[in-house]
Amino acid sequence: MTDLMRRWAIDAIGRNNLALSQAPIPEPKPGELLVRVAAVSLNYRDKLVLESGMGLPLVFPFSPGSDMAGTVAAAGAGATRFKPGERVITNFNAGWLEGKPAGTGRNPPYRSLGGTFPGVLAEYVAFPEDWFVAAPKSLDDAEASTLPITGLTVWTSLIEYGGLQAGQTVLVQGTGGVALFGLQIAKAHGAKVIVTSGSDEKLARAKALGADILINRSKEDWVEAVYRVTADRGVDHILEIVGGANLGQAIRAVAIHGRISVIGVLDGFEVSGPVGPLLMKGLTIQGIQVGHRRGLEDFTRAVEAIGLKPVIDKRYTFEQVPEAFDHLDRGPFGKIVVEVG
Amino acid sequence: MTDLMRRWAIDAIGRNNLALSQAPIPEPKPGELLVRVAAVSLNYRDKLVLESGMGLPLVFPFSPGSDMAGTVAAAGAGATRFKPGERVITNFNAGWLEGKPAGTGRNPPYRSLGGTFPGVLAEYVAFPEDWFVAAPKSLDDAEASTLPITGLTVWTSLIEYGGLQAGQTVLVQGTGGVALFGLQIAKAHGAKVIVTSGSDEKLARAKALGADILINRSKEDWVEAVYRVTADRGVDHILEIVGGANLGQAIRAVAIHGRISVIGVLDGFEVSGPVGPLLMKGLTIQGIQVGHRRGLEDFTRAVEAIGLKPVIDKRYTFEQVPEAFDHLDRGPFGKIVVEVG
Amino acid sequence: MTDLMRRWAIDAIGRNNLALSQAPIPEPKPGELLVRVAAVSLNYRDKLVLESGMGLPLVFPFSPGSDMAGTVAAAGAGATRFKPGERVITNFNAGWLEGKPAGTGRNPPYRSLGGTFPGVLAEYVAFPEDWFVAAPKSLDDAEASTLPITGLTVWTSLIEYGGLQAGQTVLVQGTGGVALFGLQIAKAHGAKVIVTSGSDEKLARAKALGADILINRSKEDWVEAVYRVTADRGVDHILEIVGGANLGQAIRAVAIHGRISVIGVLDGFEVSGPVGPLLMKGLTIQGIQVGHRRGLEDFTRAVEAIGLKPVIDKRYTFEQVPEAFDHLDRGPFGKIVVEVG
Amino acid sequence: MTDLMRRWAIDAIGRNNLALSQAPIPEPKPGELLVRVAAVSLNYRDKLVLESGMGLPLVFPFSPGSDMAGTVAAAGAGATRFKPGERVITNFNAGWLEGKPAGTGRNPPYRSLGGTFPGVLAEYVAFPEDWFVAAPKSLDDAEASTLPITGLTVWTSLIEYGGLQAGQTVLVQGTGGVALFGLQIAKAHGAKVIVTSGSDEKLARAKALGADILINRSKEDWVEAVYRVTADRGVDHILEIVGGANLGQAIRAVAIHGRISVIGVLDGFEVSGPVGPLLMKGLTIQGIQVGHRRGLEDFTRAVEAIGLKPVIDKRYTFEQVPEAFDHLDRGPFGKIVVEVG
Repeated sequence: MTDLMRRWAIDAIGRNNLALSQAPIPEPKPGELLVRVAAVSLNYRDKLVLESGMGLPLVFPFSPGSDMAGTVAAAGAGATRFKPGERVITNFNAGWLEGKPAGTGRNPPYRSLGGTFPGVLAEYVAFPEDWFVAAPKSLDDAEASTLPITGLTVWTSLIEYGGLQAGQTVLVQGTGGVALFGLQIAKAHGAKVIVTSGSDEKLARAKALGADILINRSKEDWVEAVYRVTADRGVDHILEIVGGANLGQAIRAVAIHGRISVIGVLDGFEVSGPVGPLLMKGLTIQGIQVGHRRGLEDFTRAVEAIGLKPVIDKRYTFEQVPEAFDHLDRGPFGKIVVEVG
Repeated sequence: MTDLMRRWAIDAIGRNNLALSQAPIPEPKPGELLVRVAAVSLNYRDKLVLESGMGLPLVFPFSPGSDMAGTVAAAGAGATRFKPGERVITNFNAGWLEGKPAGTGRNPPYRSLGGTFPGVLAEYVAFPEDWFVAAPKSLDDAEASTLPITGLTVWTSLIEYGGLQAGQTVLVQGTGGVALFGLQIAKAHGAKVIVTSGSDEKLARAKALGADILINRSKEDWVEAVYRVTADRGVDHILEIVGGANLGQAIRAVAIHGRISVIGVLDGFEVSGPVGPLLMKGLTIQGIQVGHRRGLEDFTRAVEAIGLKPVIDKRYTFEQVPEAFDHLDRGPFGKIVVEVG
Repeated sequence: MTDLMRRWAIDAIGRNNLALSQAPIPEPKPGELLVRVAAVSLNYRDKLVLESGMGLPLVFPFSPGSDMAGTVAAAGAGATRFKPGERVITNFNAGWLEGKPAGTGRNPPYRSLGGTFPGVLAEYVAFPEDWFVAAPKSLDDAEASTLPITGLTVWTSLIEYGGLQAGQTVLVQGTGGVALFGLQIAKAHGAKVIVTSGSDEKLARAKALGADILINRSKEDWVEAVYRVTADRGVDHILEIVGGANLGQAIRAVAIHGRISVIGVLDGFEVSGPVGPLLMKGLTIQGIQVGHRRGLEDFTRAVEAIGLKPVIDKRYTFEQVPEAFDHLDRGPFGKIVVEVG
Repeated sequence: MTDLMRRWAIDAIGRNNLALSQAPIPEPKPGELLVRVAAVSLNYRDKLVLESGMGLPLVFPFSPGSDMAGTVAAAGAGATRFKPGERVITNFNAGWLEGKPAGTGRNPPYRSLGGTFPGVLAEYVAFPEDWFVAAPKSLDDAEASTLPITGLTVWTSLIEYGGLQAGQTVLVQGTGGVALFGLQIAKAHGAKVIVTSGSDEKLARAKALGADILINRSKEDWVEAVYRVTADRGVDHILEIVGGANLGQAIRAVAIHGRISVIGVLDGFEVSGPVGPLLMKGLTIQGIQVGHRRGLEDFTRAVEAIGLKPVIDKRYTFEQVPEAFDHLDRGPFGKIVVEVG
């Protein structure tokens, strides 16, 4: 271990400001773990933070990135949850262990890595030990790094709150990270999965991953298609990642007593929809803020039990971070990961 | 019992068409009960059906009215749930016994009295025995007639789905039937109740009924007032009866992991709100379509146990139905009831 | 269709009294369906009814059998849920549609086919249309006949009430019908399954069906083995089919906040267990009385979605019913079915 | 603050060894709070620990007592949840914040004050800040000290897990602390409460506190009495504090789909009951290990909202601890509290 490490950081808001620089390796304070970062999974949210700051109290120089897998390098005084050499991943909502997060109606919780707190696009990070969870043994570091935000958001939506059962239907929109985790987690619980996309080629790849029903939303009205393929029944669970008036489409497509999990970081925008079917179907719409640590532990255990392999579109080296963000702009099939080590 | 009865009916959509006329007393078919109507509680929905038809398949001459209490006059072949002489109330969602109602995502359930099925503003009605529930012994007929729609909607929202606990906060908007049942049911479960209204006089009357916190929404921003009186925590449950952009206010006012129950018959209109707090608070928004028969039985048992007395603003005679609808236009404090007998 | 049919019946309690005889084909009354029985799945309970009557109000001549699949032959007046030619299965708890069954604490519900009501070991049966559910298209009649009691009991335990999630552990005892449905339903939801048995050969067959962990309970203490294979964690769900003091073993083997579903028809016997771990683990023990019709519909949908094939040890002809019961005495691997048609 | 404080402690297991002695006032370590104890509520468990050790790893000299209210005297480094001068109560399950407690199936959680950890019958205690909750403003210290074990156990049983609704029935056994909290919490949620006791005088006092139905169990079979007063329906929730074969009585007395919450510290003993009604009623039996910190916070908020005043049979001075334990032996009406200050 040397005294200096490399990290990506900005000195001011703006993606053009992103640069690779050197900084001291952090010292783990009491209760903290120093972790050697092995892989960082990029999220759309990281882009928004770089480009707009998202209203967050960024401290410059600011390293972006919220999702990582790595290996404990050292433990601060009193930190006993993990030992040096153990592989860990972060939980996005720092310190949310279970149940309700901290915060108030006026000031909702947003204690997030790569925002309120420093990000993880660095060779080392030091955080309180409570922010880490054991990485699943069945995944390599790049794969494991995709669980904390994208994977856990889907798990929280469909399983922790959604109580998904075999035989129910799940609809995912597109073929990005949320959609493909939705496909994999739903199939692992025996559900039927409908994928909507504007690309026949991506739909074909989703089918190879187990999708039951494919809808090309550029060729037909997807709500009508849902009615057609479900004999008018509608779908039980929708992962809504688009927002805006698209929520109205989801409200139309859902079954009696169906659930719509609203996912995303489209802060500042509106959702809207028709009140008639909302009432008459007794729908539930729930906003999903990723998830808590116990949920991530449950999800990690499930990943091992079912042999789930996250879909990574491309792995980039630490030096290729700008290219990785460019790929994110183009809309990957699954996840984009930066391998740090 | 004579062969003819009086009833209020329309021959075509339009409130001006409402007239008192004579019709044969219906014969109870196999499995049906003939019920002597004692009281009919009016709902805003009855007005909409008269004025617009609400897109429902009305059969003319059509009698409006969905909520009633009465006494079994005769039982059709095989009808054994109730005996002549027993007091009953109707369940609004005809045939929805428990769990999920019938219907599909494309064609949601709307098997309602006073719409899909004939209404109850008549001296007698005959319906399948499954559509009735025993009236609570602790209420007179006028009071009992207010339970099936207004009372049950609140019960479904706060108790059946909401799991209300003592110490939680509930916010009701205005002082109509939904709001006052919300106040009474919430207080009976040990909750703190916030009432918003534009009238200090109505707020004072709500306070006399047990309201803990009063907000005059014409004098201050009610969301800011909620933050003030809850030390920024927000409210746990909101009964949302306004719709439209008001949902956005509810989203702002609610606590972490709070619930908004969307109530009403504003079919055709939109609801909208900000996605940021929806996500960051992990909110649940649920559309409430009144409730099922088991819920009405549970609610009836609760009404007896807690001695709940529905708030009736004014009782009208059967001849005064037009005046009763006029009162509904002006916004009553609680419920308007027509006494038929 | 002739006027007479064959059926197995007893004239008095006692298995030796079971004889094949002729009886008139029943007429479907209003609201009933006449169904041509194609297959009957035998349950341990059928044996107990024959041998002891189980305290039920049997009407002689009494036909045993509670589980069947068949084809609608005719519909009584007003029966519209199914048309002649459609394939159906029965729901064991006659008339329990959803939520809570009828009955009281003093007189619990036991409106069962092949007990309170006539059984199904006949060429035709006529029952109210509400007692039937559509048979899954993916199963033949013999397979479909195993769902109503054995399959649904497991579904109710693990899914309807148990909310099973991928990554959790399920323990099943033995390799009979309940155990193998438990194995299959649990695997379809991504769970890890532990099977205990006294036979290495049966354990090997369970492994071939997907069991993750095998414990030969005649070779080691199964509770200690559970601790060993779960790193002391214990199991999340146990299907308890033995009763008596075995419940105490289940209480010891279960994880923190685990669930024990008590299944069986060991009426008149006791269960017992240590109160210490019951308290300290915050366990839930729930008695499972098969399930309701909506659950059977959900389960049927799941069977089709996941391609579940019930394990049938042996199929017998209608004439071989005594041999089929003898096989039941010996403890089959999965289910025993009588093919009637 | 002086350097020495008084405390009650034993040097070896045995109630006769309990003596008042002096000890250094503890220093709050990093993350700890030093609290000036104002009141200690005694529990039956404290007696068992003194008399038998209950198999716990007691460190001598050992101070008994698990429930207290007091005032923060000083905060260790980094402890920020409470400030000196704020009134706090302890949570019995040290460090259980929400959801599932730590521990395994083999080694269940039992990180309890006054057992695994030192007790609170002292003028000062120092514990991690996470073990404390704000005391309700509406209660004095003696009243507040009764919430952490007795009150929270009931809250967890009936509300957190039980989802109690108005109109349901709750049965409590006797008139000790658990029973009277059960009565008060159930009434605050609109339930009907049945109290069983062997003393007409105590039943009369329970009636004055709001009990709806009184059963003198020495004069009649209490299960038959329950059937009589509920028209055979049975009760929805039973707080089972006796254990042993009494569980069987509770299984008989409960309604369809009822709940039995098993409470107590009768470690080492058995519970038993008949499997027939367990199955046929679809009962849930749950072991209750007091509760988590978030539950205690919810309960505290409820206590303030509903104005709940714990029933204290008698308050003793710090010097009178032996007399207080003697009173506990005799079975108090409600709680026994030692005022320390």
